[in-house]
Amino acid sequence: MSRRSLLGGTAAAVGAATLTATAAGTASAAASRDVDVAIVGAGLAGLTAARDLVAAGKSVVVLEARDRVGGRVVGLSLANGGITEGGGEFIGPTQDRIKALADSLGVQTFTTYNTGNNLLYKDGKKTPYATDGILGSVPPIDAAGLANAAIVQAKLDDLAKQIPVDAPWTAAKADEWDRQTFETWLRANAVIPSAKFLFDVACTSIFSAEPRELSFLFVLFYIAAAGNAANPGTLERLTETANGAQELRFVGGSQLVPIKLAATLGDRVVLSAPVRTIARSGGRYVVTADGITVNARKVVVALAPPLAARITYDPLLPAARDQLTQRLPMASVGKAIAIYDTPFWRADGFNGQVVSDSGVISSTFDNSPPDASYGALMGFIEADEARKLDAASEAEVRAAVLKDYTTYFGEKAASPSSFVLQRWNNEAYTRGGPVSIAAPGVLTQYGPAVREPVGGIHWAGTETSTYWMGFMDGAVRSGERVAREVLAVL
Amino acid sequence: MSRRSLLGGTAAAVGAATLTATAAGTASAAASRDVDVAIVGAGLAGLTAARDLVAAGKSVVVLEARDRVGGRVVGLSLANGGITEGGGEFIGPTQDRIKALADSLGVQTFTTYNTGNNLLYKDGKKTPYATDGILGSVPPIDAAGLANAAIVQAKLDDLAKQIPVDAPWTAAKADEWDRQTFETWLRANAVIPSAKFLFDVACTSIFSAEPRELSFLFVLFYIAAAGNAANPGTLERLTETANGAQELRFVGGSQLVPIKLAATLGDRVVLSAPVRTIARSGGRYVVTADGITVNARKVVVALAPPLAARITYDPLLPAARDQLTQRLPMASVGKAIAIYDTPFWRADGFNGQVVSDSGVISSTFDNSPPDASYGALMGFIEADEARKLDAASEAEVRAAVLKDYTTYFGEKAASPSSFVLQRWNNEAYTRGGPVSIAAPGVLTQYGPAVREPVGGIHWAGTETSTYWMGFMDGAVRSGERVAREVLAVL
Repeated sequence: MSRRSLLGGTAAAVGAATLTATAAGTASAAASRDVDVAIVGAGLAGLTAARDLVAAGKSVVVLEARDRVGGRVVGLSLANGGITEGGGEFIGPTQDRIKALADSLGVQTFTTYNTGNNLLYKDGKKTPYATDGILGSVPPIDAAGLANAAIVQAKLDDLAKQIPVDAPWTAAKADEWDRQTFETWLRANAVIPSAKFLFDVACTSIFSAEPRELSFLFVLFYIAAAGNAANPGTLERLTETANGAQELRFVGGSQLVPIKLAATLGDRVVLSAPVRTIARSGGRYVVTADGITVNARKVVVALAPPLAARITYDPLLPAARDQLTQRLPMASVGKAIAIYDTPFWRADGFNGQVVSDSGVISSTFDNSPPDASYGALMGFIEADEARKLDAASEAEVRAAVLKDYTTYFGEKAASPSSFVLQRWNNEAYTRGGPVSIAAPGVLTQYGPAVREPVGGIHWAGTETSTYWMGFMDGAVRSGERVAREVLAVL
Repeated sequence: MSRRSLLGGTAAAVGAATLTATAAGTASAAASRDVDVAIVGAGLAGLTAARDLVAAGKSVVVLEARDRVGGRVVGLSLANGGITEGGGEFIGPTQDRIKALADSLGVQTFTTYNTGNNLLYKDGKKTPYATDGILGSVPPIDAAGLANAAIVQAKLDDLAKQIPVDAPWTAAKADEWDRQTFETWLRANAVIPSAKFLFDVACTSIFSAEPRELSFLFVLFYIAAAGNAANPGTLERLTETANGAQELRFVGGSQLVPIKLAATLGDRVVLSAPVRTIARSGGRYVVTADGITVNARKVVVALAPPLAARITYDPLLPAARDQLTQRLPMASVGKAIAIYDTPFWRADGFNGQVVSDSGVISSTFDNSPPDASYGALMGFIEADEARKLDAASEAEVRAAVLKDYTTYFGEKAASPSSFVLQRWNNEAYTRGGPVSIAAPGVLTQYGPAVREPVGGIHWAGTETSTYWMGFMDGAVRSGERVAREVLAVL
């Protein structure tokens, strides 16, 4: 259904990448291995961990369920020979670790197209607005709403400063914040309807979840994590393009980073090898995947928690860890990218970024390549809207998306030259996205279990990161952290 | 660690039961079978479904992961030769289907010991109180708290009447109720601290979850479901002993019901056969368990949703169903039963039922056998308290529990003749209990997926029941419903 690019196709399309299905190991080519560390998952977290462990002289194998590397980072091949991003794609200031990784691999960045006006679509009316005003890119809502929104935003940033990112559950008011939904808090604080609207859109854009699904403590943690040790996280850094988490993209598409990283690991990466069991045996671990069995001193599981729950562990995981994995569901997200001969909205003075109160797409970006040799309009299908379309055909989703794009950018948007769709909820080895979310009561009771090793099993993945949890940067940080953790006990 | 009774031991202990490990099938004895319906899980739901399908002339196999039947209903063998309940044990008015099942199997009920005073332990003070006053068994708190509690209880019952039990998400105010936690609602309504205390204790007693973990809509549904078509559910029916869900127990222990039911199915029940994959193949299904493969026209999965998620499905489940299973975690519960030569608290005028604001046990029952030939004091370890003890040794748990029992009933409680513990969070094939819970946003977005068949795969288990969800009665109802559902399409 969705035209997700297989590794080979992606590698061919990007030219520079050297890893192909032939170069990478395959399960059938290697029925058993004996290594220092078995790594489950060849997303950015698992691959980064492998890099650091190999650099320290350790032997590793990375077992990947899919027939490609990158996890939630994937390139979609286009009919015109180009490539666009079906998953994580943006990076921004303070995302130092993904930037350093990309630099080391020679993957270059370019600035996300951000020239011209944003577009607010609200109550059936289109209002262009500048992105560089005193208020940043706050949409043109009524004055009372703007004032209310400014206060709420300041309050969120202020409360987020009270969150220790390595242990949000130890915040002085953690219990208070973890017993209510973000929706409950917003209703008490974003009292002007237009202000509430802005935070609702911000929430679905950031989390692909509705405010009612999230613990207020989890939201504050996520804001606090949008920074680094020197720069406390802010809501603005999460939502903005310039100076924010959407500032830069990767030349050649974001999957180039895991593809090139995997290429440095050679046949240590085994594709199409979903792990079924992790069993301790005589002080070591036997990791059994389809087609390959690995015997290892330590294991790194670099999967989102609800997917890690689907592996059978022997001995059983402690209750705290198992119940955590029952309580961090994947949010709901899809990406729809319409390809046009040109990015025609630019000529109309638009930067391609929409904020909308209706339709299946309430947030868009100009996803064209750096040379603008064709136009790409990318929209997120998020939360309730994603769920409504989960069972729809690709044609139905396409029709609904193009209806929205036409509403926002006119008739030209109705006839793209091609259209690609990435439906993460329907992907076997993700089953949602972009990230796990926490309802009230989870972080305060189960938070520590997200990173705490269980015997020789260590946990990675963006969900375990203290900074930029939910982002590519968090994934890389988690890989670096888990490698240090494992090296300390190897 | 925990002394959960294996099937053979239980059967021997109860005498009347005929199913033993020898009589039941074992995986090694039957490597493959071809049947009309493969049923996953030999709890009350799966066994009831099997009964009805067999009665309709269909061939079935019931695959059970454990080495015993009963799921969350289990008998624990005692050193004195007796048996006590480690899981579900009580039934009460309107629980018609479990009662009918027990009657049909000749399993008799007796009245839960309820003579004498309840005991309130609050602020370090013990206050006995009668169970038969105008206020039922409402503990003796301050008048303002009592008045507040009465209003809140009436309001909960009133709102619950607006919930259609077969589709709570269609209630007129479903969205409003599903965007807040029960905690948020209680804080706005149970404004007197002593009233809030009562509802907190009621919440942990009913759900083994804290009010912050639960959607208010889910709580209202659970109340609405505590009845039958002729008798709307009420909070009181959930919490009370006399005329409530704790009114009756089974002579010989509750596991006698699934044991006797399984005996009628003979070697159709296969123990120690955890199901790993369910794959569609040419219009049929191949269900692969450890040691046995079943080829079937239809499949019934009678597991709690988070456990059903750990099976690999081919083709993939729809996103709505998969994401539902990520969002219905098991609550956290243990049961601790101390055995004494006599139920000595009876002589002191107590019925053995405590409501406490502290300790690891905040709710107890007299679990002695009908002839009171020995005394059994049973306490629930729930929610936050259960989680605190998940990693503790059995000796540590025992010490903490006996400290509480001694506080409540005096020094005699400090020296039981034996002590048994059932820690559901640590059980491989339950990983929590007594039931799945729903945080805000789950029922309104995912509710229908709890029962909606996926191709030839049908869902059962107490979580799928419209009445008495979370109870043995709901499990039986779900088995009867799923059998009708499957028969309609076979």
